[in-house]
Amino acid sequence: MTPHQLYENILRKRSFLCVGLDADLSKIPAHLLGQEDPLFAFNKAIIEATADLCIAYKPNLAFYESRGVKGWTSLERTVHYLREHHPDQFIIADAKRGDIGNTATMYARTFFEELDVDAVTVAPYMGEDSVTPFLTYAGKWVILLALTSNTGSNDFQLTADASGERLFEKVLRRSQQWGDSNRLMYVVGATQGKAFEDVRRIVPDHFLLVPGVGAQGGSLEAVCRYGMTGRCGLIVNSSRAILYADGSEQFADAARREARKVQQEMDALLG
Amino acid sequence: MTPHQLYENILRKRSFLCVGLDADLSKIPAHLLGQEDPLFAFNKAIIEATADLCIAYKPNLAFYESRGVKGWTSLERTVHYLREHHPDQFIIADAKRGDIGNTATMYARTFFEELDVDAVTVAPYMGEDSVTPFLTYAGKWVILLALTSNTGSNDFQLTADASGERLFEKVLRRSQQWGDSNRLMYVVGATQGKAFEDVRRIVPDHFLLVPGVGAQGGSLEAVCRYGMTGRCGLIVNSSRAILYADGSEQFADAARREARKVQQEMDALLG
Repeated sequence: MTPHQLYENILRKRSFLCVGLDADLSKIPAHLLGQEDPLFAFNKAIIEATADLCIAYKPNLAFYESRGVKGWTSLERTVHYLREHHPDQFIIADAKRGDIGNTATMYARTFFEELDVDAVTVAPYMGEDSVTPFLTYAGKWVILLALTSNTGSNDFQLTADASGERLFEKVLRRSQQWGDSNRLMYVVGATQGKAFEDVRRIVPDHFLLVPGVGAQGGSLEAVCRYGMTGRCGLIVNSSRAILYADGSEQFADAARREARKVQQEMDALLG
Repeated sequence: MTPHQLYENILRKRSFLCVGLDADLSKIPAHLLGQEDPLFAFNKAIIEATADLCIAYKPNLAFYESRGVKGWTSLERTVHYLREHHPDQFIIADAKRGDIGNTATMYARTFFEELDVDAVTVAPYMGEDSVTPFLTYAGKWVILLALTSNTGSNDFQLTADASGERLFEKVLRRSQQWGDSNRLMYVVGATQGKAFEDVRRIVPDHFLLVPGVGAQGGSLEAVCRYGMTGRCGLIVNSSRAILYADGSEQFADAARREARKVQQEMDALLG
């Protein structure tokens, strides 16, 4: 998918919402547990309830890998279902991979050939050769961790070098040499508020994947004030607040209501 | 497994070799491709040919995930085979995971409950809450990336802050607050040579997992000169140089010869 197609989807749906498919067997409604593939049944219901309100879905690999082979099957079925029934959706494998070139090439194959998603999140710690193998697929995206939404983001990402450049800024600058805004996005947590201004000074045009609204407490309004570009430039993710709005058999209706709330807020913020 | 048990295995086998099970369908001998589970058949043959010469096995998740559900099945069968037939082996899931606490908890469940390996490699970029969920399992280990073996390790890991502390040193120091040498190991690449002295100044007693000998060209002798402790403190990994020493039906004999060479070198270096 191109940045232009992504922006067209945002304008058409008046939404830049990504629904995080963190399907957790210990949290999904009990009546689904009897199904042959409960995680897929849950995802399918969530997708049907929210697809017209969002432009992207982001399964977090941990929630599927924790079920072993069964989980991988649920993940593959979910991606195939999206591809078949909602081809306009941008599918992000939230995997946060990062390994030496030889291994990164295998991961790229996993996500872009085996699973055939549009984007994969990648961790920058191991540097260039851990990222570039993901950048060789036309129309596919690397979403590089820059400034994350969790408390641990303070441990290393904000460390400044002798010149005052912080690690997340170094990641943003250095990675410009590896790929451009047609191939690279960055993860910036919604909890980072004004730091979006520092991010935009370095990557004024890139799309940012923004986790941390909803359960993690980030403000959508602040994210847009400091991070929105002329072509939106934001994909804002919400997972738990939408998926687990209600634990009853009406969970999908509740998920839709939550997604609708966020979409209406986004509609207003798109102006 | 305790550090004491690990050291006893090293003394008993006169080896601190870890065989990296990077089973790649495009590299394993052709005659195995007809088997029902070629990756498992390959791993089983490699394990039987090397188990008396090494103390650990390290499947890299990428090589299994790239096969989707089939690959996960091969991985689970490999781990179960090791548990059943070689219970003294230390099993490392080379996954390099790193995500927010909620997700890290799911990954910890994947590797320590679902797969039941002894250790998992973790990336430090996201900080404390991305690591500590892995430290809550008695007898299980986190192997944190510190100074890796690849060229990209120069991009961020060597960046010094205003006080001159480099990122990998900050990772070593900060993580001391999260767990001790009974729960935490660090990845330091064999290609880093004298930098092992800087690592040992901060973590004099911790075990280090050392990739990068063999195909990546690191020197075992240099690793031991600068990194070995009174209780060895090293687990040195070799993958491709052993696995793919020979592509014929005699691949396992060739793998054993390569592993034997390294083990004999280690025997001498243990003194």
